[in-house]
Amino acid sequence: MRRSGYPLARLGIIGGGQLGRMMTLQAKKLGCHVFVLDPYPHSPAGAIAMEQVVGGFGDPQAIRTLVERCDVTTYDIEHINTRALQELEAEGHVILPAPGLLAMVQDKLRQKEALAAQGIPVVPYEQCDHPTPEALAAFGYPLVQKLRHGGYDGKGVALLRGPEDLRQKLPGESLLERVIDIAEELSVMVVRGRDTHMVVYPAVEMVFDPRGNLLDLLLAPARIPEALARQAREMAEAAISAVDGVGAFGVEMFHTANGQLLINEIAPRPHNSGHYTIEACMTSQFEQHVRAVLGLPLGSAAQISPCAMINLLGEPGSKGKPHLEGLDEALAIPGVSVHIYGKAEVRPLRKMGHVTVLDDSVEAAAEKAKRVRACLRIVGEFSG
Amino acid sequence: MRRSGYPLARLGIIGGGQLGRMMTLQAKKLGCHVFVLDPYPHSPAGAIAMEQVVGGFGDPQAIRTLVERCDVTTYDIEHINTRALQELEAEGHVILPAPGLLAMVQDKLRQKEALAAQGIPVVPYEQCDHPTPEALAAFGYPLVQKLRHGGYDGKGVALLRGPEDLRQKLPGESLLERVIDIAEELSVMVVRGRDTHMVVYPAVEMVFDPRGNLLDLLLAPARIPEALARQAREMAEAAISAVDGVGAFGVEMFHTANGQLLINEIAPRPHNSGHYTIEACMTSQFEQHVRAVLGLPLGSAAQISPCAMINLLGEPGSKGKPHLEGLDEALAIPGVSVHIYGKAEVRPLRKMGHVTVLDDSVEAAAEKAKRVRACLRIVGEFSG
Repeated sequence: MRRSGYPLARLGIIGGGQLGRMMTLQAKKLGCHVFVLDPYPHSPAGAIAMEQVVGGFGDPQAIRTLVERCDVTTYDIEHINTRALQELEAEGHVILPAPGLLAMVQDKLRQKEALAAQGIPVVPYEQCDHPTPEALAAFGYPLVQKLRHGGYDGKGVALLRGPEDLRQKLPGESLLERVIDIAEELSVMVVRGRDTHMVVYPAVEMVFDPRGNLLDLLLAPARIPEALARQAREMAEAAISAVDGVGAFGVEMFHTANGQLLINEIAPRPHNSGHYTIEACMTSQFEQHVRAVLGLPLGSAAQISPCAMINLLGEPGSKGKPHLEGLDEALAIPGVSVHIYGKAEVRPLRKMGHVTVLDDSVEAAAEKAKRVRACLRIVGEFSG
Repeated sequence: MRRSGYPLARLGIIGGGQLGRMMTLQAKKLGCHVFVLDPYPHSPAGAIAMEQVVGGFGDPQAIRTLVERCDVTTYDIEHINTRALQELEAEGHVILPAPGLLAMVQDKLRQKEALAAQGIPVVPYEQCDHPTPEALAAFGYPLVQKLRHGGYDGKGVALLRGPEDLRQKLPGESLLERVIDIAEELSVMVVRGRDTHMVVYPAVEMVFDPRGNLLDLLLAPARIPEALARQAREMAEAAISAVDGVGAFGVEMFHTANGQLLINEIAPRPHNSGHYTIEACMTSQFEQHVRAVLGLPLGSAAQISPCAMINLLGEPGSKGKPHLEGLDEALAIPGVSVHIYGKAEVRPLRKMGHVTVLDDSVEAAAEKAKRVRACLRIVGEFSG
């Protein structure tokens, strides 16, 4: 029988946002000491970690300082200097998911190629190094332009319906995709251990806010036939095996109007679409991620209650210190769990928190979630 | 509509143990800043709070420092200088549950009298200021002696079967009770808001470890008839109304072999028998406590999965830095959630963590909990 000391491990997290914060809580529950790297002092995760290293995600020295202090290092964001991570990995430091995988995922072209090479259906795409008006016209409108590098939370993606939208065109190496007629956007969380054992969460349904292409309402489980849910889960497992992932991964998919299931992209970390697992599942995605990167057995991913989840975004025009409106009204609704991330400044559409609602059915939970959205707002001290 | 700033409130917690730690996590989730008072630096709660005031629970100046820094102050232990709290309350500081209530609960005689005065059935008792052999003999053996002041976690209680047990007799003002023939020990968590609104959790069943009179196995819900469970919940509500409590309260009861339901004692804080609510209920006892003392609406106390819970106690003879044995084996059991409190030193029978197990039935969860207890041990570096 293995004997573990206390702390169980020193866990490093690059990125001190809400994902890192929720990871930190779970890692502490399991008896870890947690160290966080983030450029902003008192980041959401740094404020509850043992220590925060203040530094940028591109700074090799700051990354080295964190990694050398820890037994295992992971991350809650994708925009990290992967060369620095690869150097540290070559020196024998444990960094999971692997830096090579992260570098691949960072490049949307390489990510698509890796999945397609394993026969996994992805949204059809074409490489476009120079997105000139001529190149776009040659591909044909309407189209979706995605930057190969640097996109997140709906940024780095442009819908161009015709030449009249050229002003929204993004500069830089891109992929061009056909506009898909989407029936549902689905997501599946997959957790894969160091021993390649996997657990898969239910397929969930994501409804997006057209304002910022941000997740607006999540329904768990998705309101789709069982056969389709099973297909989504199998495809998600295949995708994470294909990239040899270790940790929790969000696999975003489109279910098209003509019945196809296509992978949109994968996130090498706990994912916004998995926040619901904290309240609604046997084991949360955050605990599973920590277990996976530490080489511990994974837990059950069974769902114990239907639920819905909404993000709390900074209101348009909001700036400065955040204020909450309608918290009493929201908390008075049975089954509501409010998560405030502790960010000191609000910005328009910034993720400031989320709300999970449990109920006897996903429809009832969604109804309550919409009531919460109608009453609970995060505004800034300078907002109108 | 009320507008709340960020932080939502500065919450003070007197006591930095595991209860304070789990309260802190929930308070942070709701957007509070948390300040903790504890004599040991880096206490379990202090390590994740915004700041810890290092000082004793009897020290009026340390208590003042904490309370003056906070909007609302609460506590996770009972042995606090209530005179200091009452002075601060008289100056207008919000301290909940009320210091007067705490002073009453600290004295087991006054607690019993307060409940009995409202017609709430308690274990029959007799006041005994001087527990001399003659006084004990006059009461008659077998008997249970309880100190009026200072008991906790099974300390301050002695079972005296006859004069041959006089060596176990405790010094000090006492209560004497008849030995009850107990069918089940039950507990009910009640949460009462500032507006006197109450929510009540299911009645749960406690099995005790005879080694230290510490909770050994908790089953939720209790395996008792529905009518008895309802009676227990109603009696718990009546008890907390009787003492005008605000916050989460543990109400411990005996169900006697001849069918009576008697209150043993109440704890003016989240309780060991309510840890299971983190995973198994809509809203945890810790979040409810925070909501109650801040004057926020209470959440649903509905249970969403049957479960069992065990404490992780330091092994007999254990000292020094803790080590975990069998963590991999425990985590490999589906539905297991391990909570390590982060205490730097292990002592025999010290509460070092707990494990909650969810399953489809309380019997299946209890079976798994026993498997966890068989494999997971916390030993000290100096233990045999």
